[in-house]
This record gives sequence, structure tokens and C-alpha cells, in this order.
Amino acid sequence: MKNRITEMLGIEHPVVQGGMMEISRASLTAAVSNAGGLGTLGQRMDLKAWRKEIVKAKELTDRPFAVNLPLHIPDLDNRLEAIIDEKVKVVTTAAGDPARVMETLKAAGIVVLHVVGTALQAEKVEQSGVDIIVAEGGESGGMVGKDRVSTVVLVPEVSGRVKVPVVAAGGLADARGLVAALALGAEGVQIGTRFLVAKECSAGEEWKQAVCKAKDTDTHIVPRGKAQGRMLKDDIMAGAMAGIVAGLISEELSAQQIMDSIVGGAEAVLENVNRQFRE
Amino acid sequence: MKNRITEMLGIEHPVVQGGMMEISRASLTAAVSNAGGLGTLGQRMDLKAWRKEIVKAKELTDRPFAVNLPLHIPDLDNRLEAIIDEKVKVVTTAAGDPARVMETLKAAGIVVLHVVGTALQAEKVEQSGVDIIVAEGGESGGMVGKDRVSTVVLVPEVSGRVKVPVVAAGGLADARGLVAALALGAEGVQIGTRFLVAKECSAGEEWKQAVCKAKDTDTHIVPRGKAQGRMLKDDIMAGAMAGIVAGLISEELSAQQIMDSIVGGAEAVLENVNRQFRE
Repeated sequence: MKNRITEMLGIEHPVVQGGMMEISRASLTAAVSNAGGLGTLGQRMDLKAWRKEIVKAKELTDRPFAVNLPLHIPDLDNRLEAIIDEKVKVVTTAAGDPARVMETLKAAGIVVLHVVGTALQAEKVEQSGVDIIVAEGGESGGMVGKDRVSTVVLVPEVSGRVKVPVVAAGGLADARGLVAALALGAEGVQIGTRFLVAKECSAGEEWKQAVCKAKDTDTHIVPRGKAQGRMLKDDIMAGAMAGIVAGLISEELSAQQIMDSIVGGAEAVLENVNRQFRE
Repeated sequence: MKNRITEMLGIEHPVVQGGMMEISRASLTAAVSNAGGLGTLGQRMDLKAWRKEIVKAKELTDRPFAVNLPLHIPDLDNRLEAIIDEKVKVVTTAAGDPARVMETLKAAGIVVLHVVGTALQAEKVEQSGVDIIVAEGGESGGMVGKDRVSTVVLVPEVSGRVKVPVVAAGGLADARGLVAALALGAEGVQIGTRFLVAKECSAGEEWKQAVCKAKDTDTHIVPRGKAQGRMLKDDIMAGAMAGIVAGLISEELSAQQIMDSIVGGAEAVLENVNRQFRE
């Protein structure tokens, strides 16, 4: 596949693995990048441990990968410095105004993705000069914004309002999600929960099995600190983050297998749609 | 276009107008059917007024149209009798177990659509013998179920679990939504809010303008009786029903114009997706 996302990120398939805090470590990041997508290193590790993961990811893959950079963290400047020292090529910012870090990141030649939850936020961050906007619907697991627009509406809204390419996120896990996201105006997908149940992901076995067991109605939004997060319900595994899309996930696979099923399956999904239009 | 939905319903385009209670009257129903989709007559009128609308719809179109039949209404038997007397060809049931009316409807040769909000409900109603399942995500306007799974997850879940064709609903209003729904495994879309702002819809001008003005974050879910409904927020127009997709709607059009833009636009949307996969 080829579009602005694959070109700008230097990847084969427009599939971004969503950074999932401390469980998105070098092993998962590199495995996704080696499979032709864009792996993403998460946050919530201390600076030293996190920098080690960056070094490790670079050892495990020579392909581009992203590093998550939530803008509300207290040691933001140190993180920025490490990112630049380690010559990270792609950074995904979220939870704050990217304007404050854009100059530094762009001066280092870094491609910047920024995660938004509404069309209004998308217009604002485009003006700050981000390269790619991740339009993340309220379906996603983990911490979510207050307004929680759904993917199916957010993606066409955002992609209709900004000129930079859009990556769709929230509720997407498979080939059907990739083709649907492209139809809605995105040029790629960001997938979290499906990669949580990847062999290379360091989430615990109990957590992975809980996601596989969860039905479509088994996640809910719970306040967490000043924000709120989507997680599994108490009878499945209280407090474990997961997106609504858990209902579509039933087995642990390797990152390569996940990528193959998304990209390989997409051709069949698209042909099925084409056929209905041709007839 | 041709698939099981167009074949079973005898329509040109797999676009169903969602029944919107008292504002989906004969004028809108017939206009949508005349434009090649499936118009739907709403509920919330008394039996006599409602039967008059059925008669009027038959005068205004010789194409198939549907009649909404919420299963919790007190005069269900009288409504059923009128539907059969008037030789209605399609009925959309919701809010209850369709098993109790299936025998009567099938004996009259009526095609039955039933609206569900979860994959579990879909499996149940398939066993009752419904012909088509409408998988309606929590994005939709009007009364919504308690669990509110999102369209982007609900549609692949339901279409993966049942053999009957699936119509996607909730958050869909345009060509992008139609192509995305097909990618997710549906064979058609049910669209409400976009048809609320149709010239032929009897919703008041203030309501239509409020939908046009609403942004993606301007709807919310509010308790209403024993259930809950998605409606516009207080500063837009308190209490007026609308789906999240209001954010994508900006002008009043005729039903024919809406249908033309959905069906005509879908070719371009699909070609854009095909191009990215070809390259």
C-alpha cells in the first residue's frame, strides 16, 4: 500500500501500533516495525528505563518506530532530550498542546503525530504544525478524553477539516477496520488493544486472556485521577485497560501474524465491497 | 448496487431511512423510497393517524417502504392488523422480542428487519427468524439501548456472528459511512439524522437548523422515562433528538439529493480506497 502515511513514516503498511504505556516495550515496538507497520514505545517508565527501551528497540529493528510523549509529564524536557539524543524518527504527542514541543521536534527532523478526540482539537493542532493527526474515537482503551466522539463520526469530521493526513484510532483491530477507516477518510489506522494480545507485548497473561474473553459490552469508562479510562468490567478483570474492540479479539498472535491478517485480509474485504458496487 | 439487502427489499440502493417516530411521515417515507432507498414510516402517532399515513405513503410511491413497529406499544395487535390489512411489505421491529410477532408477519409475506444493539441480541433474534438485522451503534439519535456498543465494533461483531444480512446504523450519514459500513461487514446502512434534515421530513425548522449547527460534541445521552435517548445539548436545542452524526450535517436537502450524494459519492470514496491499495 502507498499513501501519505506510508510515505511520511517510511513504512510498508499504514498500521500504527498504539502506545500502551508500560506494556508497549521494545519487544513489541520492534516486532510491529519489523512486520511493516509503525511500532510505538509507550510511557510510564522512569526516564532511565525508558531510554533503555529506546536503545533496545533500535537494536531490534532498523525500521522506523515511534515514541509516545504525553505532554503533561513532569520530566518532559528530559524526555525530549533523550528522544533527540537517541535519534528517534517519529514521536506521538498527546494530552496537551503540541505547540510547546514542535520547534524542538521539527528542528531534529522528527515526524510528529498528535492524538485528538474532537474535530476542533484537530484544527488547532494542525496550526501548530503536526505532521499527522491521530483521530481517536472514544472506543479506544486506556485514558480517553472527556468528549468521546465515536470513530465513525470523528474520522470523517477530522479528515474533512484538516489538510494533513489522518490516522484513525478507536475500535479498530482488523482488516475490516483498516478498510473502513480508509473509507471514512483516514490514510491509516492506530491499533492498541489487538497488539496488547500480541506475543511480544509484555502485558500479563491474565490481562491478555481477559481481553480474549471480553464481549462487546464488557468495557466501560471509569474515572481515574483527573481523567477517565476505558477498562474491562469488574467481572472480567477490574481495572485492566482495553478498548471496546476487545469483543473482536479471541486469541494471542505474534505481531507479524496480526499484521498479516490485517493487510492480507484487507484485500478480501475490499474486493467484497467492490463486488457489491459493480453489480 | 446489488446485494442481499437490495434483493430482499426490492430496492435500488441499500440505504434505509431510519424511522424517527412522529417526524417520519408519509412524505419522507415515500420520498426516500422514490429515490431508490427504503423509506420508513415512524411511530408515536395514534392508530388512526398512523394508518392514514400508511395509506398516504402507498399513494405517494409504488415502491416498497417499511413501517416501524416498536414491540412495547400497548396497541401492538391493532397495529399488526393494520399492517397486514394495508399490505405493508416491510416491517422494522425494535424494543422487544420479535418472536411474538414473527409468525403473523411471515404468514403475511412481510420482510422483517429487527434493530439490535449488541451481538448477543443479534444471535437471539436471528433464531426468531428475522430476515435482516439492523446493528445500531450507540451513536444513533433517539432512544438507545443501555449497553451502547459503537458502530465500528458492533457491525463486524454482528455480521461475523449471524448468517442473515446486516444493515449498519448509528453515526452514518453519507457516502463515506456507506462504504465503511460495507467494509465492516454490513450490506446496507440505516440513516436517521441525515433524513431528519430532509425537505420532506416534518421535523420543525428550528430542529433542523439545530442539527445543522451542531458539532460532533453537541449530543449527549439523557435518561427519558425508563430508557435513554441521544439528543442535542441544552445550548443547541434541549430535548431535540439527534445522532452524533449531526456534526457531519450542514444543510437541508431533499431526500433525492441526500440519496444522490450518498450513492454518487460512494463511487469516489471507494475509488480512493482502491487506489491506496493498488499502489
